[in-house]
Amino acid sequence: MFAPVYLDFNATTPLDEAVRDAMLPWLGARFGNPSSRHEYGRQARAAIDEARARVAEAVGAHSTELIFTSGGSEANNLMIKGFASLLKPGRVAVSAIEHPCVREPARQLRRMGWQVDEIGVDRAGIIDEEAWQGTLANRPVLVSVMLANNETGVIQDVRRLAAEARTVGAVFHTDAVQALGKLPLDFRALGVDAMTISAHKLGGPLGVGALVLSKRVEVAPLIAGGGQEHGLRSGTENVAAIVGFGVACERAMVDRDNAALRLQSLRDALEARLMAMGAVLFSAAAPRLPNTSYFAFDGIEGETLVAKLDRAGFACASGSACSSANPEPSHTLLAMGVAPDFARNAVRVSLGRTTTPQQVDDFATTLHRLTTELRNMAAIAV
Amino acid sequence: MFAPVYLDFNATTPLDEAVRDAMLPWLGARFGNPSSRHEYGRQARAAIDEARARVAEAVGAHSTELIFTSGGSEANNLMIKGFASLLKPGRVAVSAIEHPCVREPARQLRRMGWQVDEIGVDRAGIIDEEAWQGTLANRPVLVSVMLANNETGVIQDVRRLAAEARTVGAVFHTDAVQALGKLPLDFRALGVDAMTISAHKLGGPLGVGALVLSKRVEVAPLIAGGGQEHGLRSGTENVAAIVGFGVACERAMVDRDNAALRLQSLRDALEARLMAMGAVLFSAAAPRLPNTSYFAFDGIEGETLVAKLDRAGFACASGSACSSANPEPSHTLLAMGVAPDFARNAVRVSLGRTTTPQQVDDFATTLHRLTTELRNMAAIAV
Repeated sequence: MFAPVYLDFNATTPLDEAVRDAMLPWLGARFGNPSSRHEYGRQARAAIDEARARVAEAVGAHSTELIFTSGGSEANNLMIKGFASLLKPGRVAVSAIEHPCVREPARQLRRMGWQVDEIGVDRAGIIDEEAWQGTLANRPVLVSVMLANNETGVIQDVRRLAAEARTVGAVFHTDAVQALGKLPLDFRALGVDAMTISAHKLGGPLGVGALVLSKRVEVAPLIAGGGQEHGLRSGTENVAAIVGFGVACERAMVDRDNAALRLQSLRDALEARLMAMGAVLFSAAAPRLPNTSYFAFDGIEGETLVAKLDRAGFACASGSACSSANPEPSHTLLAMGVAPDFARNAVRVSLGRTTTPQQVDDFATTLHRLTTELRNMAAIAV
Repeated sequence: MFAPVYLDFNATTPLDEAVRDAMLPWLGARFGNPSSRHEYGRQARAAIDEARARVAEAVGAHSTELIFTSGGSEANNLMIKGFASLLKPGRVAVSAIEHPCVREPARQLRRMGWQVDEIGVDRAGIIDEEAWQGTLANRPVLVSVMLANNETGVIQDVRRLAAEARTVGAVFHTDAVQALGKLPLDFRALGVDAMTISAHKLGGPLGVGALVLSKRVEVAPLIAGGGQEHGLRSGTENVAAIVGFGVACERAMVDRDNAALRLQSLRDALEARLMAMGAVLFSAAAPRLPNTSYFAFDGIEGETLVAKLDRAGFACASGSACSSANPEPSHTLLAMGVAPDFARNAVRVSLGRTTTPQQVDDFATTLHRLTTELRNMAAIAV
């Protein structure tokens, strides 16, 4: 099979082989429904319990604080809508750079009479201090600010934001999908009330995520029914995926800090090359994920460049994968004050476990060739 | 590994080997996010398109009518709550024997001001005609009646009910999770507006189901975000599971009618033995799924019997698996007018693809021994 160089780890990651091995029995002889009270069911239940302990351990939470979902999008919707549905319409605040699976459920609340504030960011993509103070003054009942942005990789000071939100009585949720496996992540130490995580961003399978939820906070189930997950998420548990999530967390924790240093060094080497080519790096001065580089070239559309890179054997992204069906420029860059025309030039490279120095070098060389060609074509067209 | 005889196919089914083989590449080298616009993403997108066509073909729907979800519970919640959330509170009607993942979201609507009618059934478990006419007279905007019950296996005349519901302007939804793969199932021919299906009941994987939805009916997404599934179900698609769903549908259709006849013959043989032992068969006179037998012995608690069968190497259920964390007697049997004490004695055996005549014979022999022992113990206790 043709296997292009994969440089899109923020979109999804290859399944870790140890994760796959751990999942296979649950796609084979161990197929029971965890709610069944016989040998097959008990085995499945025990496997879920073990996976729950592993995931909880990886994020500094108690295993009873985990609600397994079908992924990060469901967990974010559960938090936003499940929390709001138990209250009379009031006010929530979400950052302007949240993933659509936070922004859209917040917008759905508007139809039910809720006020939804979008918290602005500065030019680096960090929560703007004035906007933040304005948000607190509005006394929202719920605040959601992501830990690390999927496009820029920018890391917010969630610990401080959560502490300040608490002083005005707000419940604080953070979408930590992009942080898990890339940064130290401790639910208790962050001091948040709720946190979303997902398996497929750290070598785990698609189809599973979790909402980590403090016992102090009540939510109504988004998926009601048989009463699984303490009544907060019904539906037969996806046993193989949950088992895979547990092993992926365990594996990612083992060498997370070394892996992060290795990726950062590769990323820095890439960015030195990018700057030499005249690229503009977004959020370069902000605290960022070690694996993410988001950049643009003047006069070269991101979609065009990504398509050419694809044909040349390199898989990367323009804007975030999840909204790439949408031709609009990145809402994250627009929120940072980037002009729409320039935002359309954005390209994201996100490195991961399998990325090698040779791949990064080859990518930079190919990128240089393609941008030169595209500029020459543009010059001829003029 | 100790492998008890599995007689609980209505709870979940072993993964068909061909399904597993089809899934494995998507847990390996083909790991792309279907929203990504590079080779990995395009491959994943193509696989989803192919699976969608296969599932649609199996249920007589157009592929654009399918909304893939994480399972049947999510699909039922999407229908009930997604439909209601676009309307002013009114009236919905669901049968009294629906799975909790229909009944519970309907109950959640009550808190938002909706009237929820529960449609009663007769002693055989079939929708009661008088109750049904009363339901229609109340002019609900939405009616949900399951095609085949997970406990009794009773099949409702959904085609007629849907046609009559339409005459009063109601949208008609049917939970066909237990029907798919066991009965001919044709969305168009049934004349319903919406239908829920799930993969893991017919040899497919856990973690995927679908709502089949007519274009005439609008629902709001339960999981909003990146806009996948035509904006009706956001979240990165579970590619491997969706691929497996497609193959499971294709495989199940190939010999569905022969398989059904084979299972019915095994089930009839089992029930002849059960009656000889003095068991009461629930819904024996009603149209039923070919694989399901639901019965009780006077004076022998279902939980106790199932536990003894489990230790003797036979996996079956007491009440439905999904609500078995709940010690209450089956709501289906109570709705049929079975006395609570007797309902607690219910045991469900559901046969499937791997069930052999020898297994059924061994089961009946073991059941006879265990019921005799339990009766003797009861006699001594008195």
